[in-house]
Amino acid sequence: SAELWRNFQEFAAKAVQMGASDPRKIVFSAKMGLALMLISLLIFLRDPIQDLSRYSVWAILTVVVVFEFSIGATLSKGFNRGLGTLSAGGLALGMAELSEFAGDWEELILVISIFTTGFIVTYLKLHPTMKPYEYGFRVFLLTYCFIMVSGYRTREFIHTAVTRFLLIALGAGVCLVVNICIYPIWAGEDLHNLVAKNFVGVATSLEGWFLDHNHIGCVNGYLNCVEYVKIPSKILTYQASDDPLYEGYRSAVESKSQEESLEGFAIWEPPHGPYKMLRYPWKNYVKVSGALRHCAFAVMALHGCILSEIQAPAERRQVFKQELQRVGFEGARVLRELGNKVKNMEKLGHVDILFKVHEAAEELQTKIDKKSYLLVNSESWEIGNRPKVLIDTQDLMNMEDNNRVLEHKSRSEAVLDFRTALKSWDSKDHIMDIKSTMATGVPSDKMPSKQTSWPARSSFDAGVPAAVPEEESRTYESASALSLATFASLLIEFVARLQNLVDSFEELSEKANFKEPEPLEPSEVCGFWTRVRKFLCC
Amino acid sequence: SAELWRNFQEFAAKAVQMGASDPRKIVFSAKMGLALMLISLLIFLRDPIQDLSRYSVWAILTVVVVFEFSIGATLSKGFNRGLGTLSAGGLALGMAELSEFAGDWEELILVISIFTTGFIVTYLKLHPTMKPYEYGFRVFLLTYCFIMVSGYRTREFIHTAVTRFLLIALGAGVCLVVNICIYPIWAGEDLHNLVAKNFVGVATSLEGWFLDHNHIGCVNGYLNCVEYVKIPSKILTYQASDDPLYEGYRSAVESKSQEESLEGFAIWEPPHGPYKMLRYPWKNYVKVSGALRHCAFAVMALHGCILSEIQAPAERRQVFKQELQRVGFEGARVLRELGNKVKNMEKLGHVDILFKVHEAAEELQTKIDKKSYLLVNSESWEIGNRPKVLIDTQDLMNMEDNNRVLEHKSRSEAVLDFRTALKSWDSKDHIMDIKSTMATGVPSDKMPSKQTSWPARSSFDAGVPAAVPEEESRTYESASALSLATFASLLIEFVARLQNLVDSFEELSEKANFKEPEPLEPSEVCGFWTRVRKFLCC
Repeated sequence: SAELWRNFQEFAAKAVQMGASDPRKIVFSAKMGLALMLISLLIFLRDPIQDLSRYSVWAILTVVVVFEFSIGATLSKGFNRGLGTLSAGGLALGMAELSEFAGDWEELILVISIFTTGFIVTYLKLHPTMKPYEYGFRVFLLTYCFIMVSGYRTREFIHTAVTRFLLIALGAGVCLVVNICIYPIWAGEDLHNLVAKNFVGVATSLEGWFLDHNHIGCVNGYLNCVEYVKIPSKILTYQASDDPLYEGYRSAVESKSQEESLEGFAIWEPPHGPYKMLRYPWKNYVKVSGALRHCAFAVMALHGCILSEIQAPAERRQVFKQELQRVGFEGARVLRELGNKVKNMEKLGHVDILFKVHEAAEELQTKIDKKSYLLVNSESWEIGNRPKVLIDTQDLMNMEDNNRVLEHKSRSEAVLDFRTALKSWDSKDHIMDIKSTMATGVPSDKMPSKQTSWPARSSFDAGVPAAVPEEESRTYESASALSLATFASLLIEFVARLQNLVDSFEELSEKANFKEPEPLEPSEVCGFWTRVRKFLCC
Repeated sequence: SAELWRNFQEFAAKAVQMGASDPRKIVFSAKMGLALMLISLLIFLRDPIQDLSRYSVWAILTVVVVFEFSIGATLSKGFNRGLGTLSAGGLALGMAELSEFAGDWEELILVISIFTTGFIVTYLKLHPTMKPYEYGFRVFLLTYCFIMVSGYRTREFIHTAVTRFLLIALGAGVCLVVNICIYPIWAGEDLHNLVAKNFVGVATSLEGWFLDHNHIGCVNGYLNCVEYVKIPSKILTYQASDDPLYEGYRSAVESKSQEESLEGFAIWEPPHGPYKMLRYPWKNYVKVSGALRHCAFAVMALHGCILSEIQAPAERRQVFKQELQRVGFEGARVLRELGNKVKNMEKLGHVDILFKVHEAAEELQTKIDKKSYLLVNSESWEIGNRPKVLIDTQDLMNMEDNNRVLEHKSRSEAVLDFRTALKSWDSKDHIMDIKSTMATGVPSDKMPSKQTSWPARSSFDAGVPAAVPEEESRTYESASALSLATFASLLIEFVARLQNLVDSFEELSEKANFKEPEPLEPSEVCGFWTRVRKFLCC
């Protein structure tokens, strides 16, 4: 009994929590109760008209089936139901008339017509393009069979059909009035909010929250060498997990089917609220979200670098820290800003929203260009072996090469002695490797803590000469340095994908007639006190 | 009229095509027609029992609603319907008894109870965990209201409830008999085939078909420098497209919700065919598919390298061609083999299926290690500036460095003179760049043909000194070389993810009790004629 009581408490807590997180669910449930109550009352009141209330089941059935969460879904189901009933009623009446001519064979013809209709309608229903009308097909079948069977028994085909239709109309009318007039819930609004939320999710995955330091995004996580002691198997099998970095982009990637169904409902909704336009471009919200998804896949690939077995040494990451961080920050800023603009339905204006993030990415690119020796290991270069491809163009090389080198020297401030340069750099590189090995532990030691074990696999092989593990580990080091290059170029790829996102946003903002952004308030003009007041108000 | 006729022809062609591609759809439609016909016949035959057939609508409704494509879906809906009807019937009868005590207030109490029930049931239905029982809740509401309203009118609460239940049972019985006894369609089989198909899709995306050269996978596409003149906007917004490379991994990524609903139905199905086991581990099929999805995301990132603005020069790709191709080939082979094993329900046996692909990846890694100078541009290195981090460990460096260099020299066959080496390599690098620029066109010329324009953006800026575009283009070249490194390390990451896939497959094959693989037939023994006969038979 105590057990039961505890279960009940848990259950009640869950129910209350659901209502608190989305109060519309409470409102909707109350509306459903109200609609059912109204239809029952109508049937009670109409008690004298015995005949009508005998078919009361149709009105109740219509309310139960058609009353959906959003206005769009209700309208779409109501339309399906109406169309299915009307067309099936027409066909059934026609068939009934025809079958009467058949005399004794009437029953057979009725049964065969039921089989044929059932076959054809079910077959058409299975075509993928018919999915939105699935319910309409069901209603069609139900109505057809019901009128045939019940009409045959009572010989009142037309009466059955008309009564049925009237009661369905009554139920649908109650549904629509209650659902639209009392606190309407719009699918379009849901879609709008979902898209805006996805922007925040991807930005969070990329860069984490500003305030809450427990939520670390990809970029900072990578720089701080966040490592999973054991990668949650939910991530490895792409299931929902409570890792905020992962959930951010995952929900953006996963929301596709939800968006599509919301779009399917939203196009049924009349202009309302801020969506004052016939043929509102809901499709473009889905398109913007698709472009965001394309960016989210780049963030997913960045996350892959954190999940990966092969990790770049922490020191080398620090070299690019500032640039990587800036790109991450600016990228997330663009996402948040676009998300806000979607939410507030504002146009971009004349600001180049991508300017700063492009600048940051170019800075990163230049830094990589200058420090790319950190991204590779030089030890194993077979510099002596000249690849065959190049021999043909030898002459061209000599000429062009001299030009370039001169130009380069004249531009650089310090004249470099290449010999010393190479030497010092080569030795630097060694230190890097040693330090990285010390910092992150010997690769083969680290492996068993993770799930996948491949990159270190061969080190455990028996019977290999002692020299091989050494070479193996050097190869591993080189791979680990390259993984930093991968992270950087994936980040740059992410930035490149933003252009496409901005383009789809602009298309949306044009088609949906978003408002012009407010001009920036002249914050310099307002004095010290205004700012203090503002500060206090916040 | 000709227009109409053409439309009809198109329509008929589509319908025939659907039937040809999945004949089960035809069978299912015929079964649906048969079930409806049977239930109508039963009602016609029972004509004398006027009373029962007055409620005939319930039997028809049950057939229309419960008859689903797969056995599992039918059983699950039937269960929902049965449970909803029974529990609502019980509650309604209880409430009706109670309300009779209320005397004059009876009607009010009935209406209030309808509102309360409607509210509570709808609210519970909205909880995400209740999704599989959504239909049961609807039936509950319908039954409750119907019995209340109709029972109040006729004062035959129990009679209404019992008749209704009997007719629903009749309808459900017809459904089950027809659906299970005639050509049953199992959701579990669908799930099994879907998972196996996903393997083939990802393998195709990775490596293309062997036979059809129009279907080029990621790896060969990258090596052949396949470029999209204009990236289909469907790919940029993650919609279905007819690009086979894209569709292969996309369908594997997209199939998640389909798998989950199939799993939800499959667990309702009794043991059948090759799935002879109570509590068959359908969950593990979904898990294997999830692990495959994790690999598919790596393939998606590889595809991103082909879509990317920044492309590596063709010559450098050729240097790694053999190794990249081998990894791609072996990776796809592993996927195809695992897919076949899933399809044929065979265990892995004692073969290390990943051995060859690991070997290939290690080869690629070694090659990268040796040729990593091709992955970076050396021109802009600030070799003179020694990073500050390193100064502390200067002593360690000297010691360790000498050891390493010696060791390295003794192992390598040719003793390198570093000065000449650097020079020749540096000039080689130049040629590479020039050739690549010639081969793929000057970067800034190529850009406008694509959608995104960022990486070349600043080249078009007005008023920049002449030196900057030069530097800009150099930075671009360095990025383009790094993009090859990215491709290679993403490919290695893909290989690393295979381990996880193999692990989940092994879990599945254990739990589902797959058969041991057949020992390899001694193909050497069979003579020439056997092989000719085999060849002729195929």
